[in-house]
Parts: sequence; C-alpha cells; structure tokens
Amino acid sequence: MGELTKKFWNDDPTSLLRVRGGFRLADVDPGSTPGFNGVDRQNADRALAEGARVLSTLQEKLFAGSKFGDARRVLLVLQAMDTAGKGGIVRHVVGSVDPQGIRLYAFKAPTEEERAHDFLWRVRKRLPDAGLIGVFDRSHYEDVLIARVRRLASPAELEARYGQIREFEQQLADEGTTIVKVMLQIGSDDQKARLMERLDRADKQWKYHPGDVDERMRWDTYQEAYQLALERTSTPAAPWFVVPAEKKWYARLAVRHLLIDALERLALEWPVAAFDVAAEKARLAAT
Amino acid sequence: MGELTKKFWNDDPTSLLRVRGGFRLADVDPGSTPGFNGVDRQNADRALAEGARVLSTLQEKLFAGSKFGDARRVLLVLQAMDTAGKGGIVRHVVGSVDPQGIRLYAFKAPTEEERAHDFLWRVRKRLPDAGLIGVFDRSHYEDVLIARVRRLASPAELEARYGQIREFEQQLADEGTTIVKVMLQIGSDDQKARLMERLDRADKQWKYHPGDVDERMRWDTYQEAYQLALERTSTPAAPWFVVPAEKKWYARLAVRHLLIDALERLALEWPVAAFDVAAEKARLAAT
Repeated sequence: MGELTKKFWNDDPTSLLRVRGGFRLADVDPGSTPGFNGVDRQNADRALAEGARVLSTLQEKLFAGSKFGDARRVLLVLQAMDTAGKGGIVRHVVGSVDPQGIRLYAFKAPTEEERAHDFLWRVRKRLPDAGLIGVFDRSHYEDVLIARVRRLASPAELEARYGQIREFEQQLADEGTTIVKVMLQIGSDDQKARLMERLDRADKQWKYHPGDVDERMRWDTYQEAYQLALERTSTPAAPWFVVPAEKKWYARLAVRHLLIDALERLALEWPVAAFDVAAEKARLAAT
Repeated sequence: MGELTKKFWNDDPTSLLRVRGGFRLADVDPGSTPGFNGVDRQNADRALAEGARVLSTLQEKLFAGSKFGDARRVLLVLQAMDTAGKGGIVRHVVGSVDPQGIRLYAFKAPTEEERAHDFLWRVRKRLPDAGLIGVFDRSHYEDVLIARVRRLASPAELEARYGQIREFEQQLADEGTTIVKVMLQIGSDDQKARLMERLDRADKQWKYHPGDVDERMRWDTYQEAYQLALERTSTPAAPWFVVPAEKKWYARLAVRHLLIDALERLALEWPVAAFDVAAEKARLAAT
C-alpha cells in the first residue's frame, strides 16, 4: 500500500472487495465499510479530496504516455441494481478526473440494430482508446443479468455468454487494457427508501420510472443472476469487486481507490521528450 | 443579473465580453479582468466554487428536461492560440459538471476521409444531443483560421465559409441549440513564457510540439484571421465572446459565467412527472 492508502485504510480494499472462489453475494453487508480506518465522515471527505488529486495526476500520466506510443488504457465497468449509486460514482469519482481523459458510455436497452449483432458488438465500439479511462455505466453484463431474469435468451445461450465474456476480457487485457469491474451492492430496503425519495422530491422525480418497481419485484432473481455472473467472470485478467454502497461516501472512496490502485500498478512515468529540449528552447527564445 | 452575478461582478461579463460591430481584437488587454469586482484571488476561488454549484444544478435540469421531450441543448465552442488555456477551461469549468451531461470533442487536423467532405461534415457528427452541453475544443473555425494562415483553401473558398458558418449556426439555433463561442486571448509574450514553461517542466514537456514554434512565428497573421472570423460570424444566434486569459482564474470564472447565463436564459424547470405519483408510492410501498 502507498502512503495515501496507509493514511485512510487499515487494510487494502482492493484485496478485501475482490471476488474470489467461494464468494457469496448474500454474505456482503451493504452497510459495511471494509478496510476504512476512519470512523467519521470528515476523514472520508479528506480522503476523497486527497484521492482526487492523486487520481488526477495518474490519469494525466496515462494520457501523456499515449501521445508517445504507450497503448495502455483502463476500463471501469459499473453494474448495480437501480438507485445503488452508479450515477454518483460517475459524477463524483469519474467527474474528479479531467474530462479529456475519460470515455464514458451509458448502455441502454439494445436497439434493433444492436440486437441484430452478437451481444459484444456494441460494446467493442465503446472501448477506450490508448491513454483513456473508459467508463461503462452498465455493460455487456446486462446480457447475463436482465437477459437471465427476463429470459431474453435461451439457457444455452446464457451459459455460452460467460465464456464469451471471459475470452473477450482476456483479449482486452492482453492488448493493454486494465479492467476494473465494480458491482455496487445495496439492500432491498435501502432501494425502497431511495425510490421513495425520488417520488417525494420534485428535483428527483425525473429519475423515477414506473418500470423500476417491476424490476424491484424480481430482486431475488437479480441477486441470483449477479451471484452467477460474479463467480463465472471474476478472473485474474478482469476481476470483480463488490462494493458495499449504502454509505455513499464509502462507495466513492472505495471505487476511487480501486482506480488509483489499477493506475499505480502500471508504474506510469512522464514521457521523455522525443525532441532536443535545448534546441527547442533556443528556437523559442529567438521568436 | 442574478444574485450570484451581483456578488462577484460589477458589470455583466456576458455584455462586456461580447463581440459587436466595430470590435477590434487588438484593443483587448489579455491581462484585464472585465467586470470582476474582487481584487484578490480568494474572492475568485469563492466565486468559482459557488458558480460550480449553480452550473451543476442548471445542467441537471437541462438533462432532466430532455428525458421528457425538451429538445434544447447548449454548445460551447472554444478557440484560442496554443497555451491560452482551452485545456484548463475543459478541466476546471466543464469538469465541474456531471460528465453524464457533457459531450466533449477535440478536433484535430482533419483525416483524409474528413477532407473528402465539406468542412462542416465532421462537425455535424459531434453535435450534442438534447439535454447535453456540447463542448468543442477547436471547431469548424479552424477552417477559417489555420486554413487562412496556411492557405489551405482558396481565397474564394475561405470567403464563402463565413456565410456557410453563419447559416449552419443559425440552423442549429433554430433547432434549439444555444451557442456560446469563446476565444481565449493571451498576448504573444505570455505565450512565449508558457511554452518555455512546458519545456522546463518534466510533467509538461509532453504537451510541447516543435510545430508550436512554427505556428507562433505566424502570430500576427493568426490575429488577423481571428479578427476576420470574429467580425464575420458573431451573430445574435451565435455570438462570440473574447475572454482575456492571461489570468487563468479570470478566464475560468468568465466562461463559467457565460455558461450559467446561457442556461439561465432557458428558464429551465424540473419536469413534471408523467405518471401518477400517489399510485406509484402505493405500488412501491406494497413491495
């Protein structure tokens, strides 16, 4: 763990939150704060602000490197039940990074054209270029989540998709993409309260859709679909992290940490100039 | 002027910075701070933070409205000489808004495919959808700026482009796009110092290109091209604003103000729910 990590964490959340063999989603306490050493919000706010600066510099190094041929990039995949806080992660964690370094895409229900292709076709078109942090708000995982719950694909097709996803992600990793997959976990009661809040507030009602309640009624089936997806597709090349998200500040801190950790592993350096610095200074001075 | 405006401005920068008949770029003092009433940086920092919250809420209302059929959107066009601070505006002003509400595109030298089409072809593909704030880092104006300086088009073709741009922007405005065009203005000496700083700092060298000095040698010709572009294309539907940018904090404050002002003129309201709120509360309560 780096200096920043030590200040705010008792134990490395990258390790604590990672989905490994034997993982059971039902065992995750959505209100817990694994690894965080502060007991109060103030400490979390300080940790968030410091983390923002660290993440920002790392992102700029990644971007700078790509201008000199470094092909590496990062892909953050966000999945969650409605109201769990994907939007807040995008706004507060992704939003703390220079927008020029981000490629964000929110996947909706597939269009007719997209449905005419294999399920990874539309995903390939939204991958980040070298030097960028790609962010998927929902992703190809919908094709083994809502697709399973709503029986939008045959059992054999669903079964095949886990393998196709593993291969796809392995290929991305081989080509230089660091993949960080995050599921934000809340409890069913908390979702109910959050949906009720959307109905209660004039500035939140626009986020509510009557269909949200229909999906909510399938809560247990979704949890089973998540359990399966997590255990079948958490690989060394593309691990899943399940982040307890009832405390929003914790979820933001943890996801930021996961991004910082992924970028630190790349051991990024400022690129060395491909031109003669002294000669350029002389040219510039003469103008 | 709204409450926020009155706190930080003596006079409305939207009016002060706007390019009108008789405008002369050479008369702009790049180190000035038109309209700002604070003498110290602290006041500017407070103004920036307060403005960020205001802008953030306005953007969310714009986005929310689009989910209920409001077709309006905003387009911020950024043009400037190298090092004038376009990147800083994107990072600090655009970056203070929820990334989900932004469509950012940085135009580079046109590709072979792009050159095979008319100069507005590639621009049309990057326009913001309803509810979004589009941001152009460079734009179709390069086709009357570098194209004029470097003689990449015939004099007749260049002359025709001003009219094509006016028509294009009028059409966008008629379709519900509020266009804000910003030129960040620095002085030649300041550019020299900023380029020298890039050469001096290991974390900045990656931003330097030897070609920057070649463009710099054409400073006066660029200023003439800007003068022409500003006077030919600042229209009621798509006005230009020239923002003095030697003081970075001022440029950020002013551009944020221009965006806030553009959004306030839209008189945005939170959309009214298209469903029966009481019935939805009852359905949700029953789950």
